[in-house]
Amino acid sequence: MVSDQNTTAPLSRPLTTKHVRYELITLGDELLLGLTANGHLTFIGAQLGRRGALLNRNVTITDEADAIAAQFRESWARADVIITTGGLGPTCDDRTRDVIAEVLGQKLVFDETIKLAIEERFARFGRKMTDNNLKQAYVFERGEVLPNANGTAPGLWVEQDGKVLVMLPGPPNELQPMFLDQVVPRLAARGCLLEREAYVQLRTAGIGESALETKLQPIFDRIGSSLSVAFCAHQGAVDCRVSSPGGQLNAADLEAVAAECAQLLGDDFVCYGHDSLARVCADQLRAQEKRLAVVETATGGLLANVFTEVCGACKFFAGGVVCCSNDAKMQLLDVPECLLLQHGSVSDEAAVAMATGAAETLSADYALAVTGFAGAAETGAGGNPVGTIFIALFSPAGVWSKKLSYPGPRSTVKVRAVNAALDWLRRELVRAQRGEATPARRISAMQ
Amino acid sequence: MVSDQNTTAPLSRPLTTKHVRYELITLGDELLLGLTANGHLTFIGAQLGRRGALLNRNVTITDEADAIAAQFRESWARADVIITTGGLGPTCDDRTRDVIAEVLGQKLVFDETIKLAIEERFARFGRKMTDNNLKQAYVFERGEVLPNANGTAPGLWVEQDGKVLVMLPGPPNELQPMFLDQVVPRLAARGCLLEREAYVQLRTAGIGESALETKLQPIFDRIGSSLSVAFCAHQGAVDCRVSSPGGQLNAADLEAVAAECAQLLGDDFVCYGHDSLARVCADQLRAQEKRLAVVETATGGLLANVFTEVCGACKFFAGGVVCCSNDAKMQLLDVPECLLLQHGSVSDEAAVAMATGAAETLSADYALAVTGFAGAAETGAGGNPVGTIFIALFSPAGVWSKKLSYPGPRSTVKVRAVNAALDWLRRELVRAQRGEATPARRISAMQ
Repeated sequence: MVSDQNTTAPLSRPLTTKHVRYELITLGDELLLGLTANGHLTFIGAQLGRRGALLNRNVTITDEADAIAAQFRESWARADVIITTGGLGPTCDDRTRDVIAEVLGQKLVFDETIKLAIEERFARFGRKMTDNNLKQAYVFERGEVLPNANGTAPGLWVEQDGKVLVMLPGPPNELQPMFLDQVVPRLAARGCLLEREAYVQLRTAGIGESALETKLQPIFDRIGSSLSVAFCAHQGAVDCRVSSPGGQLNAADLEAVAAECAQLLGDDFVCYGHDSLARVCADQLRAQEKRLAVVETATGGLLANVFTEVCGACKFFAGGVVCCSNDAKMQLLDVPECLLLQHGSVSDEAAVAMATGAAETLSADYALAVTGFAGAAETGAGGNPVGTIFIALFSPAGVWSKKLSYPGPRSTVKVRAVNAALDWLRRELVRAQRGEATPARRISAMQ
Repeated sequence: MVSDQNTTAPLSRPLTTKHVRYELITLGDELLLGLTANGHLTFIGAQLGRRGALLNRNVTITDEADAIAAQFRESWARADVIITTGGLGPTCDDRTRDVIAEVLGQKLVFDETIKLAIEERFARFGRKMTDNNLKQAYVFERGEVLPNANGTAPGLWVEQDGKVLVMLPGPPNELQPMFLDQVVPRLAARGCLLEREAYVQLRTAGIGESALETKLQPIFDRIGSSLSVAFCAHQGAVDCRVSSPGGQLNAADLEAVAAECAQLLGDDFVCYGHDSLARVCADQLRAQEKRLAVVETATGGLLANVFTEVCGACKFFAGGVVCCSNDAKMQLLDVPECLLLQHGSVSDEAAVAMATGAAETLSADYALAVTGFAGAAETGAGGNPVGTIFIALFSPAGVWSKKLSYPGPRSTVKVRAVNAALDWLRRELVRAQRGEATPARRISAMQ
């Protein structure tokens, strides 16, 4: 949601800082070898985007000194703000500090304060400090140190040649607080980021990317080229982000466009902004003072997990059960054995019995059950192929089930099944909030 | 594990294909805005790495035509194989096909077969096809089509100027099977990838990256520069990968080095290769014909999920319970209320009672319980700060608990707690397999 809500007249300065060119250099063979995900791109790109700056480029290169030097020279010539991640650690493949100092013509100096902080950290966790850790105490002679509260390698900030260089440590739990607490305020103070966020995002569910674009296109066509539109499909949700890169539309204009889109989308509209489906459900449950239980086989704990990610989940989340075997369903939820034997554990009947058992055992108002064949090992009994999922929803108005079918590997099927369950619950909660009667039979349009 | 196990003499050709320069161009504002993770880098980098090729560079750029053209020209001049992902879809921001055709001086032609496949797919899923989808039926006049079994946009393969261009669709469930089934065999046939995998990776747990390097360094020093070593720290595990980029060491040599490292590491050595801690535990449980139950508060379902990710989990996984409230613990696991009231739900006593309750309720031989304060909302009662985690392990030899403390955000704390629980179970299972007596009190070195 646009936070700059007080502005109704056109802004005197543009809503974006597109004139500032940002490049992100992510270092590490482990990224190129696919051993770790490039979460830094996701995190830093999102943070910059929220403040009106588009990351122009992300380059991931190897740990080799030559590659680092060549890429840094190129980026330094082209961009205004260069952010590097990784390569500041203690091992022999951490070379970034030395290489970049040489390109910038700077000396590295040993910082006693950092040495003490590293020693103190090792002592606190009862570990022995090896000497290679002291490498992390070398800093630029003309630069600033960004202290690292969560690790040994500090970040480094250099302003030179009218440009900014920010060097951040690789571990996400060290990089992220450092970026939010120290880097964002410095960049905003120098006019490289907006003080506040500057776009509107609509989150939708139950509608595909191309259908969404087709549906909303008449609105976008009417407004014309002052509006920039980007779509992003997740599994089970599609985001539509509207902004005005030239600044012709102000925050109130963008909100009006978004509201018109939301109106047109009806219940396919989930929320403005970045709230997860689970968060939207959680807000509804809390507002209506209802409690939810879940029981899952095919999704293996992921459904319970999305709710426990929400702060204060105890208020609305009664608990979850993860079961593979019929035994567990009978032991924990009193699902009748005869039902499982007659209909199979992957069936409408089993899903309904599981949802009902979870709601009753855990004294919940709503319950979701997910059962099915998510992956290759569970070759479908009863004629159900792999990818077959049954979801049941227990609510104060009744209990229903539906059968879905997803292509793809196990992890994809699991995520899509979780999202389908969440979206069904969301729609039911929204209906309940509006006081609408629940239809006797409901079929989701979402595959 | 090196799969080329029959080779004992030095190989006639090098173990890597480092002479082939690979670049990956990942397209999409959604990557630079941090809306989606760059899973393509992870996936493609890993697949190339396993076949002896190192991805030299990954560049992520915006969807703008100028940016795509400039980057493609640069990469085409520098690399031998260029892989692009994304930008082949139906919406207006999908421009890659047109831009690259122009740079290569190729015409795009309409392919009726693809049109029919797209129409058939929409019909199968009962959705209406909008006209913008037909854009996906345009292909290079001199190139090949890589059919897409899981989506509408086909991949494209072009050989020109002695180089290879591979264009892949963005959705992971479409890209991944296309890459494995169609792209890897084609690249291997052209000598750009090895026919088989060519390195050895040791996975370790309970030892930090710098301590691991220090411990193994004497072995690496003795062998010298023919050996290349890379470390990669995950949360809770550190991988060490040994290879011989120049080909001086053959597969058997690398296996001997890895075996010496494993011997030195003792129980900190988890496995060769990429098996997860959960998979290693699963293999042990199956081999020993034991069953596991889990109960978790702070980790919210993630612990259950890692086991259900393993194929055929029903064989060893008795089930899991996810609870926030004391009610759920009492209702599902018969944890005595007086115990929870006296010691608090985040305590050694609660963890032990939960593990015992889970093992008994679900008739399991082993049980893991995780309770604690993972995130900011759960301000620690009983003097325990956020990040405090209690883990209990129930085994045929007894039940123990331990208290851990993790810095960082909720998601980090959860993952580290899951890994700590897994590693404890793994060590206990390995001891049981060796027939060793369980010490009366055990303290993990892992923080």
